[in-house]
Amino acid sequence: MITKVAAIQTSYSQDMKSNIDKTIGFIEQAAGQGANVILPPELLQNIYFCTTQDERWFDEAYEAVEHPCVIGLQPIAKKLGVVIPVSIFERDGPHTYNSVVMLDHEGSIMGVYRKTHIPDGPGYQEKYYFKPGDTGFKVWKTKFGTIGVGICWDQWFPECARAMALQGADLLMYPTAIGSEPYDEALDTSAAWQRAMQGHAVSNAMPVIAANRIGTEKGLGSPQSFYGHSFIADQTGAILQELGEVEEGVIMHDFDLKALQKNRSIWGFFRDRRSDMYGDL
Amino acid sequence: MITKVAAIQTSYSQDMKSNIDKTIGFIEQAAGQGANVILPPELLQNIYFCTTQDERWFDEAYEAVEHPCVIGLQPIAKKLGVVIPVSIFERDGPHTYNSVVMLDHEGSIMGVYRKTHIPDGPGYQEKYYFKPGDTGFKVWKTKFGTIGVGICWDQWFPECARAMALQGADLLMYPTAIGSEPYDEALDTSAAWQRAMQGHAVSNAMPVIAANRIGTEKGLGSPQSFYGHSFIADQTGAILQELGEVEEGVIMHDFDLKALQKNRSIWGFFRDRRSDMYGDL
Repeated sequence: MITKVAAIQTSYSQDMKSNIDKTIGFIEQAAGQGANVILPPELLQNIYFCTTQDERWFDEAYEAVEHPCVIGLQPIAKKLGVVIPVSIFERDGPHTYNSVVMLDHEGSIMGVYRKTHIPDGPGYQEKYYFKPGDTGFKVWKTKFGTIGVGICWDQWFPECARAMALQGADLLMYPTAIGSEPYDEALDTSAAWQRAMQGHAVSNAMPVIAANRIGTEKGLGSPQSFYGHSFIADQTGAILQELGEVEEGVIMHDFDLKALQKNRSIWGFFRDRRSDMYGDL
Repeated sequence: MITKVAAIQTSYSQDMKSNIDKTIGFIEQAAGQGANVILPPELLQNIYFCTTQDERWFDEAYEAVEHPCVIGLQPIAKKLGVVIPVSIFERDGPHTYNSVVMLDHEGSIMGVYRKTHIPDGPGYQEKYYFKPGDTGFKVWKTKFGTIGVGICWDQWFPECARAMALQGADLLMYPTAIGSEPYDEALDTSAAWQRAMQGHAVSNAMPVIAANRIGTEKGLGSPQSFYGHSFIADQTGAILQELGEVEEGVIMHDFDLKALQKNRSIWGFFRDRRSDMYGDL
């Protein structure tokens, strides 16, 4: 099976409707070139509001089935026959999560994954907004292969990638919002960010796709610049497609999932794992 | 604490005595330039005999305390005051293992780690020679910091790196023997090999040091060429020091272990791990 994956890199504003429309534009562009699974960046609903702790943002959390981004993207998934992992600020009763709602090629909700690892630090105040996810790591058997999706900070954790691989993932995807560090303007973590995920690609012998936002957001606190560098890496961790620090656009690549599966067997990582020795983890 | 780490890259022959002497020469060179912890490649006792299955090599397995490589390197560790992880073919009663014997700066044996993950494939017939290790992953509190050592194939497994980090490692080291693939002469895995370990460096926010052998060995079966590319990566996965595909020599770097520890706290990976969610591993 050949699956064409795509990652969207763009900036977002405080106007949710225009963010959804902008995302739809990129999805149409990617689908027009044959993409089957199309990944927008993290929390496309707004600016990355976690730069500060501000209670007003809790008004922007919605139940998954009622979330404007989900409702907005369902028709386009169905119309174009594409799979879309939609990253949202989710409300569930008294709880709020940083979640992905998986839309299948008919626009139906396949399920929800709630971000397991929640960061906290200057410019990334996520522990204020999001309860650590309770769903466990998830993969979805879509028409275009089994897709594992982690969310941003999850991408630094080999446990997340490995758990998705063990569940049978063919491809790993990470919607992201990452950029400058307010406490150290000179610090650029983009190379390390890529390397962590390139490592997951190698160790699990499967492609990794990451979609980050771009743009300097001045809505709150000190301005924060998101550094792009969205990429598609193959099963050896080699970066095949990449966008720059300020470009908007879509990157795409075809993967032969059957060939990847065989390659994974040849490497033998999953044959040689020693779960009896992993008690410390 | 500033620790100077070193990795040796060299070729080895079928003459164990000359291999030990050659390794001592590099250890003296590194220590002369201030190195504290000096890593030789995997199984320095001989050519990499696992290219084929040949029973004669079982004569070359010795108990750790009696192994000629251990006995040969203990005096130099003591004389120069350096820590040396010595990779050996170990016998323990009826069992044989691919092991590292850790020598402290007084030449004493701190303990033995037995390779947990054993590869098997054309040119790398390790399952014939080595029982999968029973020691679990280990770190050693040396005079120069807490050192975790994995062995070759272990280096592809994020579980090994993470387990050593969780035990308090400051630095991760991997003695290695890797090179060409007999079933596919065009295949060069060296970039993926580095990326896997660069990923461990990022995800655990600590340096990684890998020492590989070089040279084409024609002793057995089809000739096998070991590709070098020994390297020292920092805590962001950036490669700071590296040797080429055929160079012999030593690479070294100073690390401030206290600063690394602080940096690890700032990143928050260990704060944000969710061991309650890692059941699949």
